[in-house]
Amino acid sequence: MSAEWLEQVKWNSDGLVPAIAQDVNSKAVLMMAWMNREALQATLDEGRAVYWSRSRGKLWRKGEESGHVQQLREVRLDCDNDTILLQVEQVGGIACHTGREHCFFQQWQDGEWQAVDPVLKSSDEIYGKK
Amino acid sequence: MSAEWLEQVKWNSDGLVPAIAQDVNSKAVLMMAWMNREALQATLDEGRAVYWSRSRGKLWRKGEESGHVQQLREVRLDCDNDTILLQVEQVGGIACHTGREHCFFQQWQDGEWQAVDPVLKSSDEIYGKK
Repeated sequence: MSAEWLEQVKWNSDGLVPAIAQDVNSKAVLMMAWMNREALQATLDEGRAVYWSRSRGKLWRKGEESGHVQQLREVRLDCDNDTILLQVEQVGGIACHTGREHCFFQQWQDGEWQAVDPVLKSSDEIYGKK
Repeated sequence: MSAEWLEQVKWNSDGLVPAIAQDVNSKAVLMMAWMNREALQATLDEGRAVYWSRSRGKLWRKGEESGHVQQLREVRLDCDNDTILLQVEQVGGIACHTGREHCFFQQWQDGEWQAVDPVLKSSDEIYGKK
């Protein structure tokens, strides 16, 4: 049986909730990912954002490959207990794997999704050439 | 067959994606709700946030009862096309049904979730006494 505060979260049928990361300085919404109980517990224990990777089926310590760690400043839960909001310090100023500050760089304009934010760092620079 | 831009969104197996609303002025993350194709199309057509209510099984024009409409300023899609971010003007300055500016008012402190943001308006004031 896990802690009461952990069970107050309304985990979905897969045991997950959406977790939004906001940059505590720029206030940009950086990304949305998923957490299970283990990820939320690890986030609090380690003071950094830890998500659950649905594609890889394992914990995803944000920045473990890129170095772009999200240092935890605050954790919040919404009114119906099914969405998490993290306030983070984004190390390196880049949250998105495309090398942008945040993942929401496609803006709806003139009937299509247009990439509107600059790439600050190439994938090769972030992840190293293979 | 719906429009190409609508099919670029990666709808989940229920035909939904999470949609985050951010206040364009205060930068507060106001809430997270869900959209289906019809809700996203209605949001763009009407220039206000329209979600899909999973509990009621119908479109939810945010503010239809409370008057706390979210006027649309911008719509964005994330890098893997499965999360929407809205920039909105929050009419009345209240997004949450509890009468707070935003829904993320429970902060993790000292091992529990603590309500830390003020109630600006009572439910009776928002929805009218029945």
